[in-house]
Amino acid sequence: MRVLVTGAAGMIGRKLVARIAADGSLAGRKVAALDLHDIVPADCASMAGAHVSIHVGDLATPGEAEALAAARPDVVFHLAGVVSGEAEADFEKGYRVNLDGTRALLEALRMAGGRPRVVFASSIAVFGGPFPDVIPDDFHPTPMTSYGTQKLIGEALLSDYTRRGFLDGIGIRLPTICVRPGKPNKAASGFFSSIIREPLAGQEAVLPVPRGVVHTHASPRAAVGFLLHAAAIDGETVGHRRNLSMPGVAVSVGEQIEALRRMAGDTTVALIREEPDEAVWAIVKNWPSRFEAKRAQELGFSAESDFDEIIRVHLEDDGAEGTTRSGSPPAG
Amino acid sequence: MRVLVTGAAGMIGRKLVARIAADGSLAGRKVAALDLHDIVPADCASMAGAHVSIHVGDLATPGEAEALAAARPDVVFHLAGVVSGEAEADFEKGYRVNLDGTRALLEALRMAGGRPRVVFASSIAVFGGPFPDVIPDDFHPTPMTSYGTQKLIGEALLSDYTRRGFLDGIGIRLPTICVRPGKPNKAASGFFSSIIREPLAGQEAVLPVPRGVVHTHASPRAAVGFLLHAAAIDGETVGHRRNLSMPGVAVSVGEQIEALRRMAGDTTVALIREEPDEAVWAIVKNWPSRFEAKRAQELGFSAESDFDEIIRVHLEDDGAEGTTRSGSPPAG
Repeated sequence: MRVLVTGAAGMIGRKLVARIAADGSLAGRKVAALDLHDIVPADCASMAGAHVSIHVGDLATPGEAEALAAARPDVVFHLAGVVSGEAEADFEKGYRVNLDGTRALLEALRMAGGRPRVVFASSIAVFGGPFPDVIPDDFHPTPMTSYGTQKLIGEALLSDYTRRGFLDGIGIRLPTICVRPGKPNKAASGFFSSIIREPLAGQEAVLPVPRGVVHTHASPRAAVGFLLHAAAIDGETVGHRRNLSMPGVAVSVGEQIEALRRMAGDTTVALIREEPDEAVWAIVKNWPSRFEAKRAQELGFSAESDFDEIIRVHLEDDGAEGTTRSGSPPAG
Repeated sequence: MRVLVTGAAGMIGRKLVARIAADGSLAGRKVAALDLHDIVPADCASMAGAHVSIHVGDLATPGEAEALAAARPDVVFHLAGVVSGEAEADFEKGYRVNLDGTRALLEALRMAGGRPRVVFASSIAVFGGPFPDVIPDDFHPTPMTSYGTQKLIGEALLSDYTRRGFLDGIGIRLPTICVRPGKPNKAASGFFSSIIREPLAGQEAVLPVPRGVVHTHASPRAAVGFLLHAAAIDGETVGHRRNLSMPGVAVSVGEQIEALRRMAGDTTVALIREEPDEAVWAIVKNWPSRFEAKRAQELGFSAESDFDEIIRVHLEDDGAEGTTRSGSPPAG
């Protein structure tokens, strides 16, 4: 089969491509060709027996999506997009990349006529408060960011293109991905990862919100698992509601920290410095806490069962990076 | 103030324009200029003391929306769109008119910078089954038509443009408008009106579905009332959830018929011929029945209180047309 990954140079994209390359197959079929698209060159994963092509460009540019669709992919992972903060800071860029880019891809796939499985990386940002304690699968999406709006529109298009038989889409609403590897970023959600990642690397981390804040997390490995499962799932079983809130681990920041203590001890936890930041708190307090994710679980999507496991996955998958400075990988 | 109406030549558009012309004011302010846009020339309502301009064109054509926005309207009624059946039959036209046209208008208004009140005619077609008995205001929209998808996307854009401060939008989800004046049309919902309108005009009408079918209706007059109220309402009171399911009269087809009997007698009712149509039934059985519309009612939107009143409104507003053939207007 032929597989197309957009946003292939991103954090999740890289991990997905590495996993497909390692497996050599997807949804039980051998992968013969892999197209990796992004605005910068994706890592050229070598893959025995498969032809890997690197494509660099902007999906919203006329002709770009058509060229990718012309190769008639069997499975498309559409991960490309600008993140929440950027879509909010640059209104036009957000709509161009996240809406026009997505629509151009779906249109090109429609015109190519291959009816591929399209796995769309959506986000819990489609939801806006006020929230119930646990957000049910049929909670109404009222985004409070342009990013969430663009994801919601992508979901609506994916559903309609699926219903019309132009493609076979599954939208997965990702929770916050934690622990993100790499450097701290400026996303308001960054601290959820940095309070684990930095102390494990022997570095200080700042906690800008109260310990009582509850949030739902899944590891990068779980996110890749969602994508692979969505590629393989029977569309008939999913039915016509094609956008699914993914499961995750709902924990308070305090529980995150206690998990870190169990894994790495008091000295590591002592590297977390509480420094309330009103600006971050103003954003975070409007975020959803817990999701029911009943449909996704019934359909076989699964995340970690507790935050200890999320830390363990981080150490296993990104541990070299995470422990460069601390030197000694904690017990697990 | 300056008022722009798109879709001004449509059934609701004509009635809205006639009402604004009769009132001479909107939201408590005198209307000095009225721009009427549609793909065919709208009726040139004469309006004392106001400048009325007729614009003919397609909002999705580059430059079209910009020209309308350049006049800096204070209130925009965005009613333009292709209907459900056409959007389903012609996929590309539906997206061009209902999505690209709406987005072009919102973009042009953003660029013009006047931050007008924009009243967007959305539809209960944003909802898809399975439904609860009564659809709450926060029921999740999962459209089952391309038309419903396009309306949902319009709602999402309207919300985001409002949140960003580019305009001040209110989306109103209209129930089925009944009794529609004029000739029967081929919409699957057409029978809800024709079983009332045709018998009142002394003509036979076909009922293609079981009498137990429950559906929510509002008169054309009520729809105009929703639009006017949405133009005048305080945006702060509405808050950030800007798309509202409108109230209506939820009745079974049997109750519609009994209301007709009370208004016009057995002879009139005898003109309804039951002729089950599997194709119509297949569509109608997937439609929502009842709406809570609690928020809209709290915000002062109101429809008729029973179906007798809907028939009475029809006779008052479109009675000459409705009784041309029967000759004798029924009591009421």
